[in-house]
Amino acid sequence: MDEERWLLPVGIEEILPPQAEAVEFLRRTLLDLYRSWGYELVIPPFLDYLDSLLTGTGQDLDLQTFKLTDQVSGRLLGIRADMTPQVARIDTHQLRREGPSRLCYLGTVLRTRSDGFAASRSPLQVGAEIFGHAGPESDVEILRLLMLTLAAAGIDSAYLDLGHVGIFRGLAREAGLDRRQEMALFDALQRKALPEIEELIVLAGVSGEPARRLLGLAELCGEAALDRAATLLSGAGAPVRSAVDYLRRVADELHGWLPDVPVHFDLAELRGYHYKTGVVFAAFVPGWGQEIARGGRYDDIGRVFGRARPAVGFSADVKGLLRHGRPAPAAMPGAVLAPWSADPDLQDVVARLRRAGRRVVAELPGPTNTRAPLGCTERLVRKDGQWLLAPCE
Amino acid sequence: MDEERWLLPVGIEEILPPQAEAVEFLRRTLLDLYRSWGYELVIPPFLDYLDSLLTGTGQDLDLQTFKLTDQVSGRLLGIRADMTPQVARIDTHQLRREGPSRLCYLGTVLRTRSDGFAASRSPLQVGAEIFGHAGPESDVEILRLLMLTLAAAGIDSAYLDLGHVGIFRGLAREAGLDRRQEMALFDALQRKALPEIEELIVLAGVSGEPARRLLGLAELCGEAALDRAATLLSGAGAPVRSAVDYLRRVADELHGWLPDVPVHFDLAELRGYHYKTGVVFAAFVPGWGQEIARGGRYDDIGRVFGRARPAVGFSADVKGLLRHGRPAPAAMPGAVLAPWSADPDLQDVVARLRRAGRRVVAELPGPTNTRAPLGCTERLVRKDGQWLLAPCE
Repeated sequence: MDEERWLLPVGIEEILPPQAEAVEFLRRTLLDLYRSWGYELVIPPFLDYLDSLLTGTGQDLDLQTFKLTDQVSGRLLGIRADMTPQVARIDTHQLRREGPSRLCYLGTVLRTRSDGFAASRSPLQVGAEIFGHAGPESDVEILRLLMLTLAAAGIDSAYLDLGHVGIFRGLAREAGLDRRQEMALFDALQRKALPEIEELIVLAGVSGEPARRLLGLAELCGEAALDRAATLLSGAGAPVRSAVDYLRRVADELHGWLPDVPVHFDLAELRGYHYKTGVVFAAFVPGWGQEIARGGRYDDIGRVFGRARPAVGFSADVKGLLRHGRPAPAAMPGAVLAPWSADPDLQDVVARLRRAGRRVVAELPGPTNTRAPLGCTERLVRKDGQWLLAPCE
Repeated sequence: MDEERWLLPVGIEEILPPQAEAVEFLRRTLLDLYRSWGYELVIPPFLDYLDSLLTGTGQDLDLQTFKLTDQVSGRLLGIRADMTPQVARIDTHQLRREGPSRLCYLGTVLRTRSDGFAASRSPLQVGAEIFGHAGPESDVEILRLLMLTLAAAGIDSAYLDLGHVGIFRGLAREAGLDRRQEMALFDALQRKALPEIEELIVLAGVSGEPARRLLGLAELCGEAALDRAATLLSGAGAPVRSAVDYLRRVADELHGWLPDVPVHFDLAELRGYHYKTGVVFAAFVPGWGQEIARGGRYDDIGRVFGRARPAVGFSADVKGLLRHGRPAPAAMPGAVLAPWSADPDLQDVVARLRRAGRRVVAELPGPTNTRAPLGCTERLVRKDGQWLLAPCE
């Protein structure tokens, strides 16, 4: 039992020194980066009424959300499993601005089960969002910031995967699929399960061109997928064609800014399909099957609250970034050991060293203190009436 | 309903700009302070097995803790309501050091009901702990760090309230009180309910000197309380007298370091009595009835896990500190508006400004962009082939 008391639930981590310092370092680097781009920090609540937390976000988030009963109100509460909808709520309801607003956030979220995003059930989610601008430029600004986020973590081999939910959504509508059929087909598409996709299309009574397009979608992935899409979908309706065009504009604009970033397209893999409305994207690193950052456009999330605002953003798990990045930060200089004394001269020296960024550890009297504490490389000693630094031992 | 979706549960806050920036600023200031004193950052898990979270901490914390069922293990989980026991666990079980270790932490905790500590049910708890040293010096180092924490938040009028749980605990034992009687009397003492205290003492069949000492305890508060205690308790047993002596040594040592900090004693008010074992303390600001920081010694918390280590620490709510402190930080310079262009010369200028700490906001094309975004005081304009800063409008 004694041992068991120390175990942590699956997917829940504690972070010890010196790794905690690396998390803190990356945390600051990212928030400073976003601030320098004009993104304002918001701190959404950890706990919220469940209604408010899940509105407009779909079933995935519902299943991921821990639920609690509020002893004060008797109402059902949820622990945030994703901060994006909370940030959208802050934009729409609290800030109520007319022009674009740029917001960023960083904090722990909890999930009932670990999804594919990270093995963790308690990611340290970081993200940035632009509200109030509809157009490829805000998609591209978010993609640039995503790539800088990865670079800040020392990840420089990432590639991007781009898609657009409007393509599948438009094709499903043209084919006359009902909601249930659309979701079954969506599900099969995510797994690229071709025989199942074919069967679902036949079962839904779709044939001819609409069937050919839906079936072709599963194979529209890779670097040249957008060119093939233009051919395959040339006869589709305006919503589908304009989604393909929009995606092309985003890719072109992105190339103008970041010509060296490898971009793949996948017109069938649509993360967050339930509430996304436009471009969707994810970043991958070679040799790791799951995305390390993701995001997209979700213009409609504010509608249920009476004010739809264009919105695009990305998020990542800071702990995941650290796992795949270089171990930041630069090694700190060793600590300084100071004798336990209220001598004002000594305290002046200690205060000066601390202000200059050195760690100064006071030597606590008593039998426990048989040797220099961990990481102390120097100690303060008195020589000719002056306090000086001398090497430890 | 639309309006209601925006409401937050009682005692749960979201933090908007620019207040979120002030929280972040204080957060960094505090963690930098602790680091410069040799405290290592740890990040305990948000969620834990309930057993592990509550072991050794008493009933108060149990009632304050939100409980959940783990879908993965089927076991009962708790959301941390206090990070101190988690940090003690990390010291005992994960770090397993021989000499003293100094740890600090900062993070959100959740509580089912708001206690007297702060109106919030989601304080941003910050704290520092010394493990592995028993003696007034570690108590005093923690008290010094507590005062510096308040100073960092701009709070310079605080006073300290000191007590020692060994005094009441020893007197209760001498009087032969059982656990139930001890807790009933403890409860009445917290409220300084004299008639009730008197009645409980009589009911417990305590009389003579032991009764006189227990009754006198309720009035042992104020600056001179320690001197009066020495007289009142001079006939008490060794544990009581050594607790009074210890408290005197802490007060004297503290006075040597911080002669100007007002110190009150209260030998009956014992926050965290259930798991504290020595000195207990709290910091107050004039005009606010509740403490803004608190802590004490809890040497026994590791015992249930097989390794009791001396431990002393303090904690505070960062949001509470901000409410009572000066509004940090210094105003940031206004943001710079940059046209939307991938022109390399422009991007060089933008990158340089951002590295220098300026916020540079890209001007997103489109109809939403009718005027300069919030907080932009300058814009980048091209003049004679060079990108220059010009005032906005």
